[in-house]
Amino acid sequence: MNELSRRINHRLAKRCVKRSMELVVCHLLITALAFTSAFQTKLIATSKVLLDEIINGHDDSLKWLAELCDDFGPRKTGSDSLENAIDWVMESLRASGFEVHSEPVPGLPNWIRGDDSAYIIEPRQHKLNILAIDGSPPGLVEGQVVVIREIEELKNKKVKGKIVVTAQNWTTYGNAVKYRQLAKEVAKRGGLALLAKSAAPMSLYTAHTGAGARGSPIPAACLTSEEAEMISRWYDRKKKVIVRLNITSAESPEKVISRNVVFEIKGSTNPDEIVLLSAHIDSWDVGQGALDDGGGMAAMRAAMLAIKRLSEVNPDFKPKRTIRGIFWTAEEQGTLGSSHYFHDHSNRNERFVFASESDQGAFRPCNYRSRLRYQGDRRHKSLIEQIVLLMNANGVPLRVQNSSDQVDITYFANAGIPSVNYESDKGNDYYFNFHHSNADYVSIFKEDDIKYTAAIFAVLAHNIANMEEW
Amino acid sequence: MNELSRRINHRLAKRCVKRSMELVVCHLLITALAFTSAFQTKLIATSKVLLDEIINGHDDSLKWLAELCDDFGPRKTGSDSLENAIDWVMESLRASGFEVHSEPVPGLPNWIRGDDSAYIIEPRQHKLNILAIDGSPPGLVEGQVVVIREIEELKNKKVKGKIVVTAQNWTTYGNAVKYRQLAKEVAKRGGLALLAKSAAPMSLYTAHTGAGARGSPIPAACLTSEEAEMISRWYDRKKKVIVRLNITSAESPEKVISRNVVFEIKGSTNPDEIVLLSAHIDSWDVGQGALDDGGGMAAMRAAMLAIKRLSEVNPDFKPKRTIRGIFWTAEEQGTLGSSHYFHDHSNRNERFVFASESDQGAFRPCNYRSRLRYQGDRRHKSLIEQIVLLMNANGVPLRVQNSSDQVDITYFANAGIPSVNYESDKGNDYYFNFHHSNADYVSIFKEDDIKYTAAIFAVLAHNIANMEEW
Repeated sequence: MNELSRRINHRLAKRCVKRSMELVVCHLLITALAFTSAFQTKLIATSKVLLDEIINGHDDSLKWLAELCDDFGPRKTGSDSLENAIDWVMESLRASGFEVHSEPVPGLPNWIRGDDSAYIIEPRQHKLNILAIDGSPPGLVEGQVVVIREIEELKNKKVKGKIVVTAQNWTTYGNAVKYRQLAKEVAKRGGLALLAKSAAPMSLYTAHTGAGARGSPIPAACLTSEEAEMISRWYDRKKKVIVRLNITSAESPEKVISRNVVFEIKGSTNPDEIVLLSAHIDSWDVGQGALDDGGGMAAMRAAMLAIKRLSEVNPDFKPKRTIRGIFWTAEEQGTLGSSHYFHDHSNRNERFVFASESDQGAFRPCNYRSRLRYQGDRRHKSLIEQIVLLMNANGVPLRVQNSSDQVDITYFANAGIPSVNYESDKGNDYYFNFHHSNADYVSIFKEDDIKYTAAIFAVLAHNIANMEEW
Repeated sequence: MNELSRRINHRLAKRCVKRSMELVVCHLLITALAFTSAFQTKLIATSKVLLDEIINGHDDSLKWLAELCDDFGPRKTGSDSLENAIDWVMESLRASGFEVHSEPVPGLPNWIRGDDSAYIIEPRQHKLNILAIDGSPPGLVEGQVVVIREIEELKNKKVKGKIVVTAQNWTTYGNAVKYRQLAKEVAKRGGLALLAKSAAPMSLYTAHTGAGARGSPIPAACLTSEEAEMISRWYDRKKKVIVRLNITSAESPEKVISRNVVFEIKGSTNPDEIVLLSAHIDSWDVGQGALDDGGGMAAMRAAMLAIKRLSEVNPDFKPKRTIRGIFWTAEEQGTLGSSHYFHDHSNRNERFVFASESDQGAFRPCNYRSRLRYQGDRRHKSLIEQIVLLMNANGVPLRVQNSSDQVDITYFANAGIPSVNYESDKGNDYYFNFHHSNADYVSIFKEDDIKYTAAIFAVLAHNIANMEEW
């Protein structure tokens, strides 16, 4: 998940009412009424079969995801492992019978992590656990620390010639990210370097990386929450803290090319109308990129596989509109793959009628804090709400909520195409324990997670692709 | 917490009934009846004052713990930081008005962690996050991996010339520890090395260390859960996994001396009868040793400080028997400090009437899964249960349960002295997320944790020290 444009509204999530079983029964009735009027009765039946096919069928998503993550490792833009993974993903999709191609995305930045280190020199020798922030220039600096707990403190504290350590409280990811983006501001005030507390609600001595230092003249890294808090306690006790930071990470002078992966199920009657399911294929260079965003890919693949499998034995499942899957590249550097694709496709003879993405953890939704963040007009929102009611009635807790937070599909959403981004209840806070860290491994997912996420997108895509009026 | 002798019985914990508010009211009545007969009514009143003094008073435990942990770092036996920390602790206790002395513990082992590393060579290059296991000899080995998920598999799998990786499921700490102790068994079967999955219920790419490899002829280390599971998945997919392990950690040939720290409040009428409160001062060489067992020390100090403070203004709080605090050294290498102390004191003119320890997380008890693990006769158990009922009635959920799991105070317990070891509900599983890892930092504790733990031991010690019949 990229955070340049993301602001998660936790207050809205908290307002969400806990729904009871009665409500589910109520949904069932509403759904029956709504669907018979707005959709074909057939869609109610096929949606149930589709849900059952994915949730109780022979889904191989976790195995697929494990092969991708274990065998190729993390998939940073500019790395061989990303390009090798792209080849493997394309081959595996082809083996499942999909039409697959890739589209090159040129001119991508390639920041390469070095053997970075940071040590506390005073009040006692201690090696810090850091991860440099994407875009950080190399630099060797030693200096006294100034701690800030609120961004506003930067204005009042003397940071000239000092290393700024941030020790903000966790509130939301949107807030935490601001501290990771402070390098240029610190430099402007004469600071030597930035050490930002990692953006995570809980830590087990885990450093998190991410975008935020491109264009900064001073080195910048994240340190663990534990160490940010230790330094902050010393600072409060008026202890002089001296840190020596050696960043060797650097931007490669040469731009690189990567590829978006495109695969689809052609529509039978309206092939030029595209229903888009997407996730991103690249990751940071730590962990396995399983949560961010291998799980999203695995879910989208499973959703399309189920529709394809069923449509091969029953024409009712054959989509009228085209369902297209795209795995974006270079999302982590600022949705560069999707931006390129959108602009590259703006004059083509195809019409995107719906865009979607899973990039905040492909977790099973466990309660009604789970939501589709929706951007678009009211008519399409109401249709999506009816599809969601159908899922609710079948044991998938989910709601639709207006939001301008669309990440990769921002370009589609801003062009007026109805768009949703999936955020499960676990996607809200839990997700960020692992995000952009060495802890982003396949083992985060439980058996049902990918299945349920896939089921949500399969039912969405199948209904939208087959609805008479959309 | 040392694990050589520990087996936590989770089944018993699960049987624990959830108590309701009615039960608390019921406790209040029972307590009133029991106390008036068995104890002095005065003790009910003083216990309430004592609880209030610690829980709502000006407790400085977290600040004290932070100074200890931040300023000295981890406190492994054999390190300067342990001995410097011991000096600081003694000084701080003296500054609070305690009689304090230390007692040397000679002949301690001193295993020193080196710059250990492990790499996966096949199927792809990957640096593993490991921590060598205490006692591991140095060694450079490269070999194919055999994965075991149950100890019994060692018998059936060919491990000769191979590196054994364990990938057990987390059930209890007692079970997990057995895998960390397999090095000698693996060596006996011709294995090259042991890489044990870290003993923790959850991981954020966190390696855990501990005792287990002393006397092993082959190197042994723990790796993260994520990586053990990745290797295990490859193994299941019949991928050949080659690992290169370079352990430079080694036992120092010279034995070292450390010190137990002893401080007390002399009894007014029975000074030779000792009520013992204890925790251990040493830790592993990772993290800060805050959870294991800085928190225990902070709680015992706070308990004794509160009794001392109150007894200076009100003679009712003056203990009749002596309350002695001991901070054991070299617990992590097998309760060596407490063993030495017990045997050294066996012929002295003093009688230990009660022994206790906090070494499984000084957490606030949140529900009735929290317990005092008791070893001793039935009469003293019944008296302790009455003290615990008094705490229950004052909002401290806790129960007493027979257990032979006493760690440092095993020697006292086995000699027939009534003994308790505190295990809060969080001490059961949550504790092991941080235990023996780089994540063992002060920040684990919430404000109330140490206070409540201190309150439990203060009320126990105060009542036992002042009871007419014990």
